[in-house]
Amino acid sequence: MTFRVGLLGHGTVGAAFHELLESRAGTIEAELGIRPELSGVLTRSAGDFEEILERSDLVAELMGGTEPARDYVLRAMAAGKHVVTANKQLLSQHGEELFEAAREHRVQLRFEAAVAGVVPAIRVMGETLAAAHVERVHGIVNGTTNFILTQMTRTGATYQEALGEAQALGYAEADPTEDVTGKDAAAKMAILARLAFNAPVHLDQVRYEGIERVTPHDIAYAKDLGLSLKLVGTAERIDGGIAVHVHPVFLYAGHPLATVDGAFNAVTIESPAITEITLSGPGAGGPQTASAVLGDVISAMIPPPSVPPPAVEQPIVTDVEFSFYVHLEVADRPGVLAQVAEILGLQGVSIRSVVQQGLGDEARLVMVMHPVLESKFRAAVDMIAGLDFVRSTPRVIRVLEEVFE
Amino acid sequence: MTFRVGLLGHGTVGAAFHELLESRAGTIEAELGIRPELSGVLTRSAGDFEEILERSDLVAELMGGTEPARDYVLRAMAAGKHVVTANKQLLSQHGEELFEAAREHRVQLRFEAAVAGVVPAIRVMGETLAAAHVERVHGIVNGTTNFILTQMTRTGATYQEALGEAQALGYAEADPTEDVTGKDAAAKMAILARLAFNAPVHLDQVRYEGIERVTPHDIAYAKDLGLSLKLVGTAERIDGGIAVHVHPVFLYAGHPLATVDGAFNAVTIESPAITEITLSGPGAGGPQTASAVLGDVISAMIPPPSVPPPAVEQPIVTDVEFSFYVHLEVADRPGVLAQVAEILGLQGVSIRSVVQQGLGDEARLVMVMHPVLESKFRAAVDMIAGLDFVRSTPRVIRVLEEVFE
Repeated sequence: MTFRVGLLGHGTVGAAFHELLESRAGTIEAELGIRPELSGVLTRSAGDFEEILERSDLVAELMGGTEPARDYVLRAMAAGKHVVTANKQLLSQHGEELFEAAREHRVQLRFEAAVAGVVPAIRVMGETLAAAHVERVHGIVNGTTNFILTQMTRTGATYQEALGEAQALGYAEADPTEDVTGKDAAAKMAILARLAFNAPVHLDQVRYEGIERVTPHDIAYAKDLGLSLKLVGTAERIDGGIAVHVHPVFLYAGHPLATVDGAFNAVTIESPAITEITLSGPGAGGPQTASAVLGDVISAMIPPPSVPPPAVEQPIVTDVEFSFYVHLEVADRPGVLAQVAEILGLQGVSIRSVVQQGLGDEARLVMVMHPVLESKFRAAVDMIAGLDFVRSTPRVIRVLEEVFE
Repeated sequence: MTFRVGLLGHGTVGAAFHELLESRAGTIEAELGIRPELSGVLTRSAGDFEEILERSDLVAELMGGTEPARDYVLRAMAAGKHVVTANKQLLSQHGEELFEAAREHRVQLRFEAAVAGVVPAIRVMGETLAAAHVERVHGIVNGTTNFILTQMTRTGATYQEALGEAQALGYAEADPTEDVTGKDAAAKMAILARLAFNAPVHLDQVRYEGIERVTPHDIAYAKDLGLSLKLVGTAERIDGGIAVHVHPVFLYAGHPLATVDGAFNAVTIESPAITEITLSGPGAGGPQTASAVLGDVISAMIPPPSVPPPAVEQPIVTDVEFSFYVHLEVADRPGVLAQVAEILGLQGVSIRSVVQQGLGDEARLVMVMHPVLESKFRAAVDMIAGLDFVRSTPRVIRVLEEVFE
């Protein structure tokens, strides 16, 4: 059984989705019994919309812009096809018309990729929080501006310098207007507000301000006081109405958004029943957005499971590599470190760093090892524990190494 | 139309769910057209299971423990009833038997509340990530131990002192064994591993270690090096197999879990396609767990929406209260601060803090205000901008105040 996906648009996201769909189709078929297949691609120069529509069960709109995207999406739904879109401008300006059409034609209209990259804010808002009354949503929903502000904070760069760097690294477009003015974030906050409060929020109703006028002095002020400066979108209930706005904001250090750095996105949802939930992950980026689009395609293809599928036995690995910290209380006399190091070396355990602390009865060795199989490390520690100058049981704690950045 | 929910167990979570269900039933009915209603409650001393079962469409198992919970859940499913449970011990020891029964009897078995409180880890794992290949899951999934380690870090307390404080505040039980030994976290990691890798992981296959032997010296070491010490559960693919383990771990400062403090829970999901997603929020706690249970009940009652429901017009509030920071470049002469303060006062803007910086042509006033309507603040700033000693346009940035903690 196949599920035919018509693709509109073949830019960064469209091409990444095309590639992801083909690489994952086999696994999806094996797990779910249905194979998603590309039924056609419409680009600026090639493909015929009507022909693609006829051959498709679902249309993935990854063109961007409001027209002709709006026209294509409406025509697809009128023809009884499901739609998945990543188009925040379209949804924030024509959302009600599109949602109404989807309900009328009884098709699905999914748009997880339109807000916050792979962070499943749309799904969580629509499903998990059905049981909660949402009071406020805060979001860092634009990766470009968060990258620029993070760079200004880390290096002391000016806005222009950090923007140049973002452009060189592909985090900002040649024309960065939509991002740096806050308009992109405003569109995303309009969509989140629509879902949080069930109110028809249009992009025009969102007040927004960008980061173009942020200065190194503002950043320095924030650093001095332990604050973070972020472009934060807020959607909140106020006095029986709602307010949606996007501004540069100083955040106190304990706020869940304060540590969201670089091109990451995050959304915090506040409700009396749940206090707050924070979701974070990489923001825009072709492969990430494509992954969110494919998630929506799969949801449209087959209802999300309410029970896990039958499990497949897999070997359980019990001897795992870790980076270990070990703390030894030792007698303060010559040759102690040499003997410990020799035992570690014989077991193939490599020392990354070692610190000797204290004197006499307070003497200690604190060491961190390079990653090593636990069995080897344990063998070494058991031998070390038996040395006569070791005054108490060695204390061992794992260290989780930095892998991203 | 009503949807009848039989409640098994009336402890902290059961009672909170009972209360939440009754307070939210009206709103849920208004939004979804179906009213969830309590059809009966089974406690240790009252209620008859068979009678409750007969009157229910769904059974919410909030008793805890493996027996008789397992027996009741199996009987409920055999009778064609959906089941929602928050019981991690049950799922981590008898998951495959229960999932198989749910598939056989074509009923739903939902368990969002069994892992990580209100953090929707189960749903995100099952739905959003259908499109991604999960390589590794890290979790802080026990709020009690995270609270204790956070207190040890903040106050320098010993493990015993911090445990006592956690008990006094209701974050730890009188018998904290399951939490502090890591067994509770191990059960939750077994469930997450089952979903991430589709492998049948039993609690017995999870290696775990608790926090009872963590010393102030270990915490001090972490602080000195800018690391956090957390009880971290990990489920990962290794060499064609999988490994699941729970240990105290030193985390480098940039790790998404490093800043998860107090009784919060968080889960980080790593996949090549998406880099990583982090979900965080309050851990266990009656009302929070009850909220997750109700979310599952609603999902069982009516399929999650694929299109937002019709919107309801709500007034858009454009004049909102903020705490403002303002930065003024001023001429360095007497009376400057007095005039600025007078204008602010006339508009009802109250100054929280003020700093004068620099001299002569470099003189600046940096002020932070108490929360005030933007319109009032803008009126004041416009007047201030017109003063002859103000040398450039005032710079204004919002401050997000601390509301939790």
